[in-house]
Amino acid sequence: MRTAAVIGSGSWGTAFATHLAGLGFDTVLMARRRELSDKLRRHATNPEYLQVLTLPEALAYDCYAEADLSGFDLVVLAVPSRFYRSVLRTIKERLSARVCVLSLSKGLDPDSCMRLSRVAEDELQSLRPSIAVLSGPNHAEEVAFGQPSATVVSSVDMEYARRLQQLLSDEHLRVYANADLVGVELAAAVKNVIALAAGMSDGLGYGDNARAAVVTRGLAEMSRFGTALGAQARTFSGLSGLGDLVATCTSRHSRNRLAGELLAQGYTPAQVEHEIHMVVESLTVAPLVLRLAGDASVAMPITENVAAVLAEGKSVEQCVNDLMSRAPRDEDW
Amino acid sequence: MRTAAVIGSGSWGTAFATHLAGLGFDTVLMARRRELSDKLRRHATNPEYLQVLTLPEALAYDCYAEADLSGFDLVVLAVPSRFYRSVLRTIKERLSARVCVLSLSKGLDPDSCMRLSRVAEDELQSLRPSIAVLSGPNHAEEVAFGQPSATVVSSVDMEYARRLQQLLSDEHLRVYANADLVGVELAAAVKNVIALAAGMSDGLGYGDNARAAVVTRGLAEMSRFGTALGAQARTFSGLSGLGDLVATCTSRHSRNRLAGELLAQGYTPAQVEHEIHMVVESLTVAPLVLRLAGDASVAMPITENVAAVLAEGKSVEQCVNDLMSRAPRDEDW
Repeated sequence: MRTAAVIGSGSWGTAFATHLAGLGFDTVLMARRRELSDKLRRHATNPEYLQVLTLPEALAYDCYAEADLSGFDLVVLAVPSRFYRSVLRTIKERLSARVCVLSLSKGLDPDSCMRLSRVAEDELQSLRPSIAVLSGPNHAEEVAFGQPSATVVSSVDMEYARRLQQLLSDEHLRVYANADLVGVELAAAVKNVIALAAGMSDGLGYGDNARAAVVTRGLAEMSRFGTALGAQARTFSGLSGLGDLVATCTSRHSRNRLAGELLAQGYTPAQVEHEIHMVVESLTVAPLVLRLAGDASVAMPITENVAAVLAEGKSVEQCVNDLMSRAPRDEDW
Repeated sequence: MRTAAVIGSGSWGTAFATHLAGLGFDTVLMARRRELSDKLRRHATNPEYLQVLTLPEALAYDCYAEADLSGFDLVVLAVPSRFYRSVLRTIKERLSARVCVLSLSKGLDPDSCMRLSRVAEDELQSLRPSIAVLSGPNHAEEVAFGQPSATVVSSVDMEYARRLQQLLSDEHLRVYANADLVGVELAAAVKNVIALAAGMSDGLGYGDNARAAVVTRGLAEMSRFGTALGAQARTFSGLSGLGDLVATCTSRHSRNRLAGELLAQGYTPAQVEHEIHMVVESLTVAPLVLRLAGDASVAMPITENVAAVLAEGKSVEQCVNDLMSRAPRDEDW
């Protein structure tokens, strides 16, 4: 593999394109609109995200709505979950057969509740693509600046996952392979909901103890959910489960955590996305996770409370009181 | 139970005595020296720890080297691991038969590498005591100020653990019971070593991604170690494992994390304890964990690197390079 197209010029797409260029890939970062890709080229920075990052000279730019995508060895998907299917429909006619896809998006399809790799399989099936996902504790800012990070690549085709592992690793980014695609994707979806809850705790002025309890009980809830849907429990203890959860719940960079903080301060969900200026995946995914959990009869008290704040305007204080005053019990998984 | 003696007036002993007084226990906080217990009484603050906390009026003070301990329903041990056995030897003649002991200390006995509840059993066996340990993500400051926290009480006698769970819970502190005493104690010992590594990463200027990777791989290492020594794996995913690890690795309050930061800045271990003015359990426990891991043939790459920094003055940069450049692999547990 020598050439890569990164579909989506948000912060993670921009950071990952920078990483690929650093690895020696001929990389094209593709924005939704021509106007934005022109701006990226002109300024060698992304005016909307990661403004402090100077984009590498080797990076090229294009618009994914129009670009010829047939010649790329690797196509990287870095678009919000809510646009995932529509972007695939936009680009699929321009992809080659047996295209190598790597998906960076986290969430679930809002209409079908499907995992995103399933959506890609579904939309691209006539092309017989290779599909992998990459997920882990990877704040875009830090990967872009080459700070040490670790991540997971997962695919049902482990040969493909291991090939990507070799190609994407360098001294800054350590890549692990994991065959449990279901677990990796479900963890990535649910962790943003738990991060929202952690942010709510922060927003109420609570401390590190409360946040650590949210992380721990949240991981238990993620793991119960995932295993009920066919995932391996241990994936949730790995980089794409616990690792990403910890990074998202404790970082100043995390928009999902910040969203919870704003909700605790009385913002509505609509005001939160307006304030943050970026897609906040947890706002979309919380009710989807709850729907799947209901179908599978999995108890998810934290997710239920988050969804109640989002849908019914339940107060954040009331959520914490409800969670703290449940009957005493043994630790359960 | 109505009366409690807290042995040890460090930050956690002081905070827990405050919690017990709030629950309505007639509580005596006991310092090592008469001079200090007099100071506590006179100022209603602890001059050495938690200085901003005004101690509750209901709290009484005494010196555990001399006090009559025979009348207390509950004796709480909150002394550093390195003094644990000697403190028990000091007080045991003054304890009643069938005394109820709750241990808050974290670490291993430096001479024997024994878990601390085993040391208590050993020293107090003629009294046939009930012994439980309490462990979780519980920064003393936050518990003292009644911020929401969750924790675990564990004992081989689950009836005793459940009794304590009922007695120690309130709307601020949610207590879970866990029968895996071995896991709870080993997690508490090893998490400080991992927190030291997380602090080293912070001290090198690395970010949330690197720290999340340390937490994740650290938990894997803790869990391998614990299960090899007879613990249940799921305890490591609970509040006394993951929960405490997250709180310790991400908090500004954590002295073990701070110790790692100072080591990365070139301080020696001796300078670190001098600078922090408190016992840093990880400095004592790292070589003990490594010794037990060697006996059980468990690989602990993070602990090995921490121990090499402490014992041989290996550079922190070299540790990170060694950990990042290991051969690519699948996620393993």
